[in-house]
Amino acid sequence: MKVIRTAPEMRAWSFEQRRQGRSIGFVPTMGALHEGHASLMRAAAERDDARVVSIFLNPAQFAPTEDLDRYPRTFDADKAIAEATGMEAIYAPTGSGMYPEGYATYVNVDHVSEGLCGASRPTFFRGVATVVAKLFNAVLPHRAYFGQKDAQQCAVIKRMVRDLDMDIEIVEMPIVRDPDGLAMSSRNAYLSAADRTRALALSRSLFAAQAMMEAGERDAGVLLAAVREGMADIDIDYVELVDGDDFDPVDRVAGTVVLAVAARVGETRLIDNIKYTVPAKA
Amino acid sequence: MKVIRTAPEMRAWSFEQRRQGRSIGFVPTMGALHEGHASLMRAAAERDDARVVSIFLNPAQFAPTEDLDRYPRTFDADKAIAEATGMEAIYAPTGSGMYPEGYATYVNVDHVSEGLCGASRPTFFRGVATVVAKLFNAVLPHRAYFGQKDAQQCAVIKRMVRDLDMDIEIVEMPIVRDPDGLAMSSRNAYLSAADRTRALALSRSLFAAQAMMEAGERDAGVLLAAVREGMADIDIDYVELVDGDDFDPVDRVAGTVVLAVAARVGETRLIDNIKYTVPAKA
Repeated sequence: MKVIRTAPEMRAWSFEQRRQGRSIGFVPTMGALHEGHASLMRAAAERDDARVVSIFLNPAQFAPTEDLDRYPRTFDADKAIAEATGMEAIYAPTGSGMYPEGYATYVNVDHVSEGLCGASRPTFFRGVATVVAKLFNAVLPHRAYFGQKDAQQCAVIKRMVRDLDMDIEIVEMPIVRDPDGLAMSSRNAYLSAADRTRALALSRSLFAAQAMMEAGERDAGVLLAAVREGMADIDIDYVELVDGDDFDPVDRVAGTVVLAVAARVGETRLIDNIKYTVPAKA
Repeated sequence: MKVIRTAPEMRAWSFEQRRQGRSIGFVPTMGALHEGHASLMRAAAERDDARVVSIFLNPAQFAPTEDLDRYPRTFDADKAIAEATGMEAIYAPTGSGMYPEGYATYVNVDHVSEGLCGASRPTFFRGVATVVAKLFNAVLPHRAYFGQKDAQQCAVIKRMVRDLDMDIEIVEMPIVRDPDGLAMSSRNAYLSAADRTRALALSRSLFAAQAMMEAGERDAGVLLAAVREGMADIDIDYVELVDGDDFDPVDRVAGTVVLAVAARVGETRLIDNIKYTVPAKA
């Protein structure tokens, strides 16, 4: 397993893969890898010849009040998972390499990034779009794999790639859940046993709303009220029904929508969502 | 001469050049090509195997009150100049191709872009950085050539390229002037004969200040007062002495500085500058 620390070395590796006619699949992560990340890496291994995972705990997407300091750092375990899932290289740049003195450039994706997590975490998506642009310029992938767990992030990255004419296919993979329904997240490690049980309110409420949509419910108000009711015992940040492309709130279920929630359980902020597409008429 | 209209076609052309081991030199322009642009294209032709000029009048760098509508459009003449200076392809995307419906992504280079032209034209450098990032992602150049006439733009682009880990060398070429000293600009076409004469106050004042620096003057106040005095008959936007890298104002001449001016002559806003490096002690 090659561990690469700088953008020029990363590009040299990728140019060599491209020279050999190999497609490059890329999974960007902040480390603390779990089965959700593993599913992305396996998808890349299945589809692409050369496979890179990045591990970079990106300070630009944490506000000063957030959990950067206590975010889990598990490099050796991450490396083992990356190896087992068929990665060939880990791109793990340093903080000062990524944000040298005088760093001044940020990528902003307006609109798509403004509601939901963007409303609660005002500079979060600016940090995400910026670091992903930088990682793409170093890794030069053909395809990049993201998890639907971060659905708004996926929408932001897709919009950035389209808008900035980046020649990269964004592959969005389904949420991986524990058997009890909890969406996998590096932040689940923060949860006490009691909080972990309370955290099931997110997925349970979403599944119930999904059943309502499958049964024909189309009214956002009805669906959102049901989800809020199901999450009444935890500290809700938002419950929103939005269009699947531009993340604008919608009044009714039509086309593809995302039902997205965020809540604080104990000290831990968790997010989850389901995507639902109204079936075409037979 | 190949004229290319879309980013995917542009990339296909560039990938083929790269496959053949040819280096790609790129000159981004808004058309209305003059001898200043020609000097950039000749520099690219001298150094790079494959040469692309882009012609795109970028709406994102004009404020609603500015001169987008009357900006000179001279595509046939531009094409002839591009051909004569050794360009192989013109990338001339359409407005709707560059900014499709729902366009939302902008590259901001803080700090470097905030003073001087950035203070007078608040969204100008955002528009410049964004379109240059898009052009780079389509043209995939090894080197891109910019004129020192737009010195702050050069500093913004260099910072963006460094910060976003773009693998592109930025080559800054000297200002090309008419025999009487006026810096070449597509906007000089707007000037009446009388205004053209008055416009010489910019370069004349800068040359005088340069002579003062060469004679040992190091005090910014003295230099700026002399330049303002020389431009007393025209409508000054700014006269600034700044650090050559981060474009912060400086009190004294040290290292490399840029003495930059902007002024309105009649209806036309003109800019000019000189770069000065304090000689190393013998």
